[in-house]
Amino acid sequence: MKRKVIILGSTGSIGTSALKVARDLPDRMEVVGIAANRSTDVILQQIAEFNPRIVALTDPDAARTVREALPGSNTPVLDGLDGLEEISKFPEADMVLIAIVGTAGLKPALAAIRAGKDIAVASKEILVIAGEIVMREAKKYGVKVLPVDSEHSAIWQCLDGKPVESIKRLVLTASGGPFRGKKRDDLHDVTVEQALKHPTWNMGKKITIDSSTMFNKGLEMIEARWLFGLPIEQVDVIIHPQSIVHSMVEYNDGSVIAQMSINDMCYPIQYAVVYPDRVPNSMHHLDLSKMKALTFEEPDIETFISLRLAREAGHTGGTLPAVFNAANEVAVDYFLNRRIGYTRIWDCVEQCMARHGVRHADDLETVSEADSWARAEAEKLCQTF
Amino acid sequence: MKRKVIILGSTGSIGTSALKVARDLPDRMEVVGIAANRSTDVILQQIAEFNPRIVALTDPDAARTVREALPGSNTPVLDGLDGLEEISKFPEADMVLIAIVGTAGLKPALAAIRAGKDIAVASKEILVIAGEIVMREAKKYGVKVLPVDSEHSAIWQCLDGKPVESIKRLVLTASGGPFRGKKRDDLHDVTVEQALKHPTWNMGKKITIDSSTMFNKGLEMIEARWLFGLPIEQVDVIIHPQSIVHSMVEYNDGSVIAQMSINDMCYPIQYAVVYPDRVPNSMHHLDLSKMKALTFEEPDIETFISLRLAREAGHTGGTLPAVFNAANEVAVDYFLNRRIGYTRIWDCVEQCMARHGVRHADDLETVSEADSWARAEAEKLCQTF
Repeated sequence: MKRKVIILGSTGSIGTSALKVARDLPDRMEVVGIAANRSTDVILQQIAEFNPRIVALTDPDAARTVREALPGSNTPVLDGLDGLEEISKFPEADMVLIAIVGTAGLKPALAAIRAGKDIAVASKEILVIAGEIVMREAKKYGVKVLPVDSEHSAIWQCLDGKPVESIKRLVLTASGGPFRGKKRDDLHDVTVEQALKHPTWNMGKKITIDSSTMFNKGLEMIEARWLFGLPIEQVDVIIHPQSIVHSMVEYNDGSVIAQMSINDMCYPIQYAVVYPDRVPNSMHHLDLSKMKALTFEEPDIETFISLRLAREAGHTGGTLPAVFNAANEVAVDYFLNRRIGYTRIWDCVEQCMARHGVRHADDLETVSEADSWARAEAEKLCQTF
Repeated sequence: MKRKVIILGSTGSIGTSALKVARDLPDRMEVVGIAANRSTDVILQQIAEFNPRIVALTDPDAARTVREALPGSNTPVLDGLDGLEEISKFPEADMVLIAIVGTAGLKPALAAIRAGKDIAVASKEILVIAGEIVMREAKKYGVKVLPVDSEHSAIWQCLDGKPVESIKRLVLTASGGPFRGKKRDDLHDVTVEQALKHPTWNMGKKITIDSSTMFNKGLEMIEARWLFGLPIEQVDVIIHPQSIVHSMVEYNDGSVIAQMSINDMCYPIQYAVVYPDRVPNSMHHLDLSKMKALTFEEPDIETFISLRLAREAGHTGGTLPAVFNAANEVAVDYFLNRRIGYTRIWDCVEQCMARHGVRHADDLETVSEADSWARAEAEKLCQTF
């Protein structure tokens, strides 16, 4: 079966990996639509290579530039945030890959679901802030919500349809980031450059900082809770500095199933697109006898309080995960702009969560209000730090 | 569902583990029959505890002793090799666990299959010497052949029904035994005591020697070939001294799925009995963050030629695997009786295989003839060493 895929965020890191998969497996993946923010040069190259049937750029000027560069073309070039929702409903697609940074992918994700399309989620914020809504709608419209990141894809592969009752816990692996082994007091003077040096993955700035603070793993805990339908008490994190085991499922009988591969986002993307099959590819594969010794250790949640805060947010639910996410986004932005110290990222999120009056999060407006409230509150806090 | 199980070899190491599982999971496993060779005291205790509906002892004197010890009991106590076949057909059972050392379990296994019962195979010789026959009969009678050893159970758990086309290779892990890292020239003077010191598993003598020579892993390669329906070229071995990853499946897309647990035969036994469910138990479970660093390395097939011989036997097929198995049994016996040197075990099997005229092995008589021929030939060889 050939999957007809729309890629939201085609010029980003996940998006270009998705196009690599499409290039590698032309019989299994067809790119019927691509959307980006405003990288006109890159998207024009992608249009030339993949010949999508529809294109969207959120920036109207960029959309105009692309339209002008394609004279005589019948390919519609949508624009604005509406354009993202519109392209997600494109009738010829059967899957939408949401690979836009942050929460901008939420409305397009819901549009895709309501148009009966499976969604492949690379933007973890979507499920963190609106997991209840997204999973409810997916159930209602009979579509799948598929993970596209290495940890959740690993769990999906290890679970493979097993009943929830047989699971003792999901164990997300974490590299531990550049500050593994450090205590809070060692970290007050961390520079932006130090925080951006991730030991095993090469990613965007926001997610690299999130990996160093372990907010990224916290977001993944909440995401896992929704994707696999388990209480967050059954989602744990273990430090695995080699990033070869991408996650594990511990079953109630004591057996542990783990997934391993090299670090390449093409793996989870291909798995989501080709599922339930597996097919050969031209990727570099793991050489089991040449890999480093695999080690595992408990995370230090006294220092990396993000894991404790994530558990609290996931346990309380409602609008608290949205606050957890938004406060962190603001704090990371302040840190990257050198306006707050590194450890203040943790303080900001902790204090915002403590000040928040949690509400039930079963509609987008409530989620959006909580998000805005948290951003404003986090700004205020960061200015006092 | 409660499985009604007959245990052949109930007084041995696997058999007593199986009874531990039955004791632990009374709602899932009922011991309806037990069979042993001649350990009357142990079997009388087992009868008292599990109250089986049928018993068998291959030794007629032992059977008489047990009958006399149960006056007024209605429980039939069968004897002889016929008794093993008879108990395997017992109508009230739906699964027969074959946990008898060596090839003695073959006829009872076929009797069980033909009586419509699933078999759980702990005696790897059965599939090594008669894989074609056993799998053909199982298919004909619509019953399952389930693995009960840690490696094949691991592969079964990692595969879980995936199509053969999606598999790149099965990777059996091996501890490497006490002589890992040694070369052939270091091993001529190995004593029985040295060979019996296995680093990670506590097992019987024959299998402990087989682990040290890696004939055990060779037998497992051939067994895997039959259990999972793959050519032996797709069955590999990797050295993993910690024996925590029990085996792995490498898929054609480069993803590797691995199964881990502590070293306890109760795990694979429970999995075979409770499958397709998983249920909690009172076993000791793996503590992921406390386990040692996991390492993997290629086996040294120049020294441990048993792996090369196994591949050759599995590739050629027919009666050659039976010769591989029988010659090794004889050689190990000679070594344990201090009549040949350690490295002669490899020589004996290699030379027997070279001298054998391979025949197609689709009936028991042919297999049995090859087995007898190999035993006689191996005796002759060992006497010249």
